Amino acid sequence: MTDGTFTDTGVFVCFEGGEGAGKSTQSRLLAAWLQEQGCAVRLTFEPGDTPVGKQLRGIVLDPATGDLSPRTEALLYAADKAEHVDTLVLPALRRGEVVITDRYVDSSLAYQGAGRVLDVGEVTSLQRWATGDLRPHLTVVLDVAPEQGLGRFEGRDRIEAESVDFHERARQAFLGFAAADHDHYLVLDARLPVDEIAAAVRERVAPLLGQAAR
Amino acid sequence: MTDGTFTDTGVFVCFEGGEGAGKSTQSRLLAAWLQEQGCAVRLTFEPGDTPVGKQLRGIVLDPATGDLSPRTEALLYAADKAEHVDTLVLPALRRGEVVITDRYVDSSLAYQGAGRVLDVGEVTSLQRWATGDLRPHLTVVLDVAPEQGLGRFEGRDRIEAESVDFHERARQAFLGFAAADHDHYLVLDARLPVDEIAAAVRERVAPLLGQAAR
Repeated sequence: MTDGTFTDTGVFVCFEGGEGAGKSTQSRLLAAWLQEQGCAVRLTFEPGDTPVGKQLRGIVLDPATGDLSPRTEALLYAADKAEHVDTLVLPALRRGEVVITDRYVDSSLAYQGAGRVLDVGEVTSLQRWATGDLRPHLTVVLDVAPEQGLGRFEGRDRIEAESVDFHERARQAFLGFAAADHDHYLVLDARLPVDEIAAAVRERVAPLLGQAAR
Repeated sequence: MTDGTFTDTGVFVCFEGGEGAGKSTQSRLLAAWLQEQGCAVRLTFEPGDTPVGKQLRGIVLDPATGDLSPRTEALLYAADKAEHVDTLVLPALRRGEVVITDRYVDSSLAYQGAGRVLDVGEVTSLQRWATGDLRPHLTVVLDVAPEQGLGRFEGRDRIEAESVDFHERARQAFLGFAAADHDHYLVLDARLPVDEIAAAVRERVAPLLGQAAR
């Protein structure tokens, strides 16, 4: 996974992992630390952090949507990504900012792959096309057993409501992506103390900052 | 265009062409005639003839949506198609019905191609993937000059509001698809009398009916 497109300005960091792993907490902690370092930071997420993405998030996560064709679902996630990258992520990176996203391409691949309905190679090509193959400088995988992560939620959306087995397959997908590309991944046990995780993330992000706007 | 997937039951007929060419009128006339012949008919359209498609149609056609990334727009049309084919078109064809759709893949290719922003080969692959490469037995192109077709409308949606030049490029795309595959296309001048067009369509559809449910 070292042959993707990397912007030559800005730094792109992604948090991935199962539900309840602490991605949004760690994203915020990293953003706060980066701002203390004088970096311009853009904190974002998928799906839904654009006007059209918000409408698409409503469709893919609302239990009222019911069953969607697997291709439809993959295409809606891809549409959200295309809009996110073109209108928010790339412009911020071009301004030299640090962009931190809560979920990105790996989530689509892990969850679609966990569904085992579509050809994973085809879904990969689709998501790479949607994003212009823009890849994070660093993806932090917060690893959590599904029964622990999911336990933290009361009301579950369409994805959260899937079986523990589904979420375990997604978890193994995240770990597989990381194992294949140590240079661009950091796997951390989500059960570690919040501060310990935040410190480990900072340690990997700090060397990337030379190229980011201050 | 003869190597796509054709279902071995039912008949799939598509009407294509510019705005105001009379596609919905001709679709209805064909459906009425087929029902008189004792055929089970499903009249449909793109984008928007599924619950999720209706939401997507709102996004892609509402002027309030404003600019979308070209990839986003292509992916939203593809998502509408995926849902349309999987939940409506294919099930009806498998029941042996005649499915008549007002717009299909060619519309996406013509209008995206007319935009000249995305690689047409990539958009073609995307739309073919979305539809499982399901192709109509017959596509009827109702050919109309943009300034004539568009003249029939008062309020215009996002696509209709594009320039006459944009619509002329889309028109040429439809004619190009037809010229490359006479066996699966019929081009008719949309200025001909309604009855004359309907008769010409019936003449091409009749021989296909041997395989349709009655």
